[in-house]
Amino acid sequence: MQEKNYVKEITNIDDDFAKWYTDIVIKAELADYTDTKGCIVIKPYGYEIWENIQKYMDNEFKKVNIKNTYFPLLIPENLLQKEKDHVEGFAPEVAWVSEAGEEKLEERLCIRPTSETIISTMYSKWLKSYRDLPFLYNQWCNVLRWEKETRPFLRSREFLWQEGHTIHATEKEARDRTLQMLNIYDDVVENLLAIPTVKGIKTPKEKFSGAEETYTIETMMYDGKALQTATSHYFGQNFSIPFNIKFKNKEEKEEYAYQTSWGSSTRLIGGIIMAHGDNRGLKLPPKIAPIQVVIVPINMHKDNVYEKSLELYNILNKKYRTNLDIRDQYTPGYKFNFWEMKGVPIRIEIGPRDIEKNECVIVRRDTNEKIVTKLENIDKDIQNILDLIHNNMYNECKKRLEDRTTIAYNLEEFINQMNTKQGFIKAMWCGSEECENKIKQLTSAKSRCLPFNQEKISDKCVCCGKKADKLVIWGRQY
Amino acid sequence: MQEKNYVKEITNIDDDFAKWYTDIVIKAELADYTDTKGCIVIKPYGYEIWENIQKYMDNEFKKVNIKNTYFPLLIPENLLQKEKDHVEGFAPEVAWVSEAGEEKLEERLCIRPTSETIISTMYSKWLKSYRDLPFLYNQWCNVLRWEKETRPFLRSREFLWQEGHTIHATEKEARDRTLQMLNIYDDVVENLLAIPTVKGIKTPKEKFSGAEETYTIETMMYDGKALQTATSHYFGQNFSIPFNIKFKNKEEKEEYAYQTSWGSSTRLIGGIIMAHGDNRGLKLPPKIAPIQVVIVPINMHKDNVYEKSLELYNILNKKYRTNLDIRDQYTPGYKFNFWEMKGVPIRIEIGPRDIEKNECVIVRRDTNEKIVTKLENIDKDIQNILDLIHNNMYNECKKRLEDRTTIAYNLEEFINQMNTKQGFIKAMWCGSEECENKIKQLTSAKSRCLPFNQEKISDKCVCCGKKADKLVIWGRQY
Repeated sequence: MQEKNYVKEITNIDDDFAKWYTDIVIKAELADYTDTKGCIVIKPYGYEIWENIQKYMDNEFKKVNIKNTYFPLLIPENLLQKEKDHVEGFAPEVAWVSEAGEEKLEERLCIRPTSETIISTMYSKWLKSYRDLPFLYNQWCNVLRWEKETRPFLRSREFLWQEGHTIHATEKEARDRTLQMLNIYDDVVENLLAIPTVKGIKTPKEKFSGAEETYTIETMMYDGKALQTATSHYFGQNFSIPFNIKFKNKEEKEEYAYQTSWGSSTRLIGGIIMAHGDNRGLKLPPKIAPIQVVIVPINMHKDNVYEKSLELYNILNKKYRTNLDIRDQYTPGYKFNFWEMKGVPIRIEIGPRDIEKNECVIVRRDTNEKIVTKLENIDKDIQNILDLIHNNMYNECKKRLEDRTTIAYNLEEFINQMNTKQGFIKAMWCGSEECENKIKQLTSAKSRCLPFNQEKISDKCVCCGKKADKLVIWGRQY
Repeated sequence: MQEKNYVKEITNIDDDFAKWYTDIVIKAELADYTDTKGCIVIKPYGYEIWENIQKYMDNEFKKVNIKNTYFPLLIPENLLQKEKDHVEGFAPEVAWVSEAGEEKLEERLCIRPTSETIISTMYSKWLKSYRDLPFLYNQWCNVLRWEKETRPFLRSREFLWQEGHTIHATEKEARDRTLQMLNIYDDVVENLLAIPTVKGIKTPKEKFSGAEETYTIETMMYDGKALQTATSHYFGQNFSIPFNIKFKNKEEKEEYAYQTSWGSSTRLIGGIIMAHGDNRGLKLPPKIAPIQVVIVPINMHKDNVYEKSLELYNILNKKYRTNLDIRDQYTPGYKFNFWEMKGVPIRIEIGPRDIEKNECVIVRRDTNEKIVTKLENIDKDIQNILDLIHNNMYNECKKRLEDRTTIAYNLEEFINQMNTKQGFIKAMWCGSEECENKIKQLTSAKSRCLPFNQEKISDKCVCCGKKADKLVIWGRQY
């Protein structure tokens, strides 16, 4: 009875993907809604995923000389105003503090939606000579954007992220850094989260407010929609001029610095859910799963079962994040469902008959495959199977990405394809914002990026038919 | 010239300790002031100290089953109002958001000064049965308290901290947890930061707003003033009743949960500065120093010096956080001063003559002692010397703590002692708030705590002379 109810509580993934998504968030105990509208609490199981991503990413940042810092949460209004595009992009969605400590403030302070303005102000103060450069700083923090419609992890008013901000003596160095950080994100998404990516540059319309160029890591979710997982921006001198970030070069002449910023957020958790999940629940990539292996004893109160399970736990937990489920109030069947819902990559079943044969049963979350293995081989087997699971999860997504990426030569094809098989469309673009707007209006799809991997599939814009030499990937987005 | 100026820039520690303190903060590049009044930026060197503390503390938390979470920054006003003492304590110093996304909010949201109210609200929602208990959650986050007077790290409007919040089925379990977490803080302060502590319980007047009992880790700074480094609170059911945190016990009867909370913050960095620093600058405890060893080559451009220095760096950096200072524009003398200011525990000097003899010179930051050592022994020597430095720094503070802790039997003695030798005073207390207020008024000293280590030094209250059976440690505070 219990078991049936447990699975029944999730909406079928193909019936209502949006509902399925929030069911998973709640049911797998990743997050919950709070009394603060549009803001979630990240529960321990969800937070541990974030910690695992953080640990890996932070280490990659440090390898390329990025240092962590912490800048203020509150930004005086006048700083936000300094870069024209930036304030236009962010001012409509910020929260303002105008009273504090029981008094009215002279100047409103906004809660950071991103920190370019306060960081640029400090960089201007600190930078004197070319010898000080580059500044390679990052911060892990919370930011706030007052979204109208919110969804846990994907679009939350408050979210956690990292934002890196660098300044350099030359354009080349800043451009190289922009791409270097993009490649770190790409590595994280592909090799840690097992999600294949499309890398490219945003069209001017879709770039970050204030950036000269925005590079992006695009991914495709279960339903064919796109999720932008991370972006890296080249600012040129767009901020360094209004914020007066200057240095004396080797010739003692003053120059403005070249700047970058790059960010990724807890949105990645939303991506994991939507790229990998299925009707049995969450499916976690082994490298970031808070629990990689769960041991479920069968007939726990029979001779030796508990002891053997504990022994197995002690061996495995040295190397893998392992859980031993000895809860008395649930049947093994309930536990199977429970841990499948939680997306644990490997379940081990061990009962009296297995122990007699010195064996146990390994069950893969991704394929449901059962593998009988000798207890003496368990350590090596687990590592191999975790690797297999990672690769299989990646390949499943890769297959979907390829399968749901089509080519369109004209608007009719574009509309048809997007409506019959929601996914990515490769199509040529003339470069005009009007065509982007028209496509958006007709199909709800936006340009994802000009992929680095440019092909010339035709010489006509998919929208207006005029001359076109840019390949764009289009898709509906989260 | 350069060298002289460098040291001149710090105020003498005995002339003006407060000025010395802010000089160190700025000069050692730990933090800087920002355009957001009362809020600092933590610079990479300061943030790395925080990361080292965090890493250790977080690991200790996890060993005792604490899980990390993340709750919203913004708390609806009605939640803050629910616990009477709590709102009285915190409401006067919170910042309010009343406009967001270009509209006026229906209900004001406060930026968390601490998260008991929002967390208790969620605990009430999540808790059903005794089987769910305990909840053992922590969060690493920013909080805001609108202080009138601010000082970097010690009293900043925004600061970073961790706040742990647990609920339990029994009073005993909650009380045990309160002390267990206090002991972790004690370990961090003593064994990581090399600062001896006084552990005890706060008087009712000094306890946390809403707590039943507050336990504290008190430390003494260079000038004899006290710094409260961490606190752990037992709430009893003070929050669980107004917030309705109930569960069904084994007998299916409803009960209110027993609650704790405990916190420590970037204030610890202020403690490190003020407990250990001297006229040459910061002095960092080896275990949290971002750089444990700095290698300064002498006559770097002579034969083999750079190569040998690099070789040494490569050996040491595997095991210790090591820096090789090959900056061309500075003399070795300038570099010595620079790294002393930054508080690096060990400096290694290596020049042509050392290399000839297969030696180098180790200089201790704490004692300035020079130790000539054979290059083949360097790895072991460094570990030993780091341990010696830690112990010596601890003992220096211990000596001060003992030296500046006096006993007073009456008010006259109390006033005299506090005015002639600012420090801690041990004195008996009758238990009345009037006596605490009077002492505060006459001496600016507050009760630090009733130390766990209770002695009966007399049976009369130091203030009113009435019967007293409580030993209290008193001191002026940061």
